Amino acid sequence: MTPQITRISLKDYVPKGHATLSDFVIEQVPTPTKDQLKDGQIILHPLYLSVDPYQRGRLSGAKGSYVESYVKGDTITNFLVGKVTASASKDLQEGDFVLDNHGKWQTEYIVDAKDVSKAPKLDGISPEDFVGVLSMPAFTAYYGAVVLAKPKAGETILVSSASGAVGQMVVQLAKAKGLRVVGVAGSDDKVEYVKRIGADAAFNYKTCGNFVDAIKQAAPQGIDIYFDNVGGEFLDAALANIKDHARIVICGAISQYNISSPEEAYAIKNLTNILIRKASITGFIILEHFNTPDHENFVKEVTKLHKEGKIKYRTTETKGLENAPQALLDLFSGKNFGKSIVKA
Amino acid sequence: MTPQITRISLKDYVPKGHATLSDFVIEQVPTPTKDQLKDGQIILHPLYLSVDPYQRGRLSGAKGSYVESYVKGDTITNFLVGKVTASASKDLQEGDFVLDNHGKWQTEYIVDAKDVSKAPKLDGISPEDFVGVLSMPAFTAYYGAVVLAKPKAGETILVSSASGAVGQMVVQLAKAKGLRVVGVAGSDDKVEYVKRIGADAAFNYKTCGNFVDAIKQAAPQGIDIYFDNVGGEFLDAALANIKDHARIVICGAISQYNISSPEEAYAIKNLTNILIRKASITGFIILEHFNTPDHENFVKEVTKLHKEGKIKYRTTETKGLENAPQALLDLFSGKNFGKSIVKA
Repeated sequence: MTPQITRISLKDYVPKGHATLSDFVIEQVPTPTKDQLKDGQIILHPLYLSVDPYQRGRLSGAKGSYVESYVKGDTITNFLVGKVTASASKDLQEGDFVLDNHGKWQTEYIVDAKDVSKAPKLDGISPEDFVGVLSMPAFTAYYGAVVLAKPKAGETILVSSASGAVGQMVVQLAKAKGLRVVGVAGSDDKVEYVKRIGADAAFNYKTCGNFVDAIKQAAPQGIDIYFDNVGGEFLDAALANIKDHARIVICGAISQYNISSPEEAYAIKNLTNILIRKASITGFIILEHFNTPDHENFVKEVTKLHKEGKIKYRTTETKGLENAPQALLDLFSGKNFGKSIVKA
Repeated sequence: MTPQITRISLKDYVPKGHATLSDFVIEQVPTPTKDQLKDGQIILHPLYLSVDPYQRGRLSGAKGSYVESYVKGDTITNFLVGKVTASASKDLQEGDFVLDNHGKWQTEYIVDAKDVSKAPKLDGISPEDFVGVLSMPAFTAYYGAVVLAKPKAGETILVSSASGAVGQMVVQLAKAKGLRVVGVAGSDDKVEYVKRIGADAAFNYKTCGNFVDAIKQAAPQGIDIYFDNVGGEFLDAALANIKDHARIVICGAISQYNISSPEEAYAIKNLTNILIRKASITGFIILEHFNTPDHENFVKEVTKLHKEGKIKYRTTETKGLENAPQALLDLFSGKNFGKSIVKA
């Protein structure tokens, strides 16, 4: 009998509301074998999966959204770090560590070597750092807070989901750039953590009362940069607190992910402040910025800061590929702390 | 008896709603005389006043808005072109044409020569062109549509208030840059005018029905650039129609000018599209961009296009300084057509 491996796929689309475990299929399938490899292909064994909020949108089946939906029945994919277990490619050898932006949630899978990249060997960096301190959310933080927002020392930055995968990196990068940092998180524990990694002020949005006032209290002079991870009402409150020439960068709208129509979305009242304050709002998706000089600068700069101890990166690790769907669902219950990864 | 001249001042603040003629004082005051001039001063006689929508905000008495409010009792000020009638300055002579960003709505007034600038003598350009084809609204159009939006030939631009002082220039600049232009205006006459100056498609927002559908019909492939002159519901509809990497520039929010609190403002439902479409919204106020290379480029580029006949600029001229308040009020009734100027 062929040895069996685990494969995780989407059972059916979840256009709105919260997804549940029953929306996934976790099944045993035959393991791929070396004789199935075509020229240039490898068998990849995932070691660490990245689990990210933007994947919620990919469960919806919606077309024309900012990332493509998963296809019903297909294996779930996302960024992962894996190890080559067999190779018919001259570029990769058994034992190599590789990065796969579209890695499969399957114990072993066949992929073209040209569609993955060898993990750079960097002094003081291990393969799992590519789902950690050098992961996609970490790059998201860098791209938004550094490349787009062009921070100047002495400015004030507000960060929502500040203990999250993106937020904790924003907090630390902003401190390294000499900014005053105000972090927002969803529990007192997270608020403590945000302060511990360097935020000058932080508050719990679940207990702070009126958002506009809470921001004003934490940043009486106003906000130069708002790194938005939540959208909706909190974004509106931030808009009410921006200074002249403020930059708002939007890398996610987690509070809006489970909403399918504009009618259900929170409506923004303070957008006119963009005019009044000569400010800007810029949305971006990080997948478009890999393989650019910005990504090279990110790896260089963050590796250096990490080695100097100026950046720490907290992860929540779930063990076992079969538990990856639960890890994804946990992102939306507010249980996770830092970047979510699965040790496969 | 001292000869008398006309002076227009603000009677009282108009924090919200529509202003009326009774909010202004039009009175006769003594004419300034040459012997009142201190060293470096001139007497300026306004020839052409610029009348602009942003002045509505300056009637409010509100502090911390994007332009300073007028002060109750003080003479109304705005950009104008005038002629020197007396000079105690070595830099300006009687008969010189000058530009004054803060010119007074008064038949003659004393001003420091250093606070005004001599009108550049340009081939084919007359002094009144500085309230016309080279006016502040024209520069606004250039700054938003060219400097900020960075248009690429073949892209589609949507322009609201397309027959207005800013909009008509946006339409023509965009055509000169090889864009497909969709103009929106508030009457069938204006729509015809917008088409005549080059828009590929145009519609009347008062009769088009649902805004989202009307934009979709005029731009089935979506919008790359939206030059927003109105804010509110139309901005929301534009957000629903943006393409990937769209740029929205906001130079005004005329539909929101008479609103004093966010609670009364139209709430925006489609802001999440900024993330989904990796787009941006940027607000600006043109007063910050005079005396910059951008302004020099504007004067050069637009003068050239004007001489080549590629840009025409329609104005609505009101005669008589004393009629300037009515010209300002007419901006908000939708009666005006093109840039509003007063021949003083």
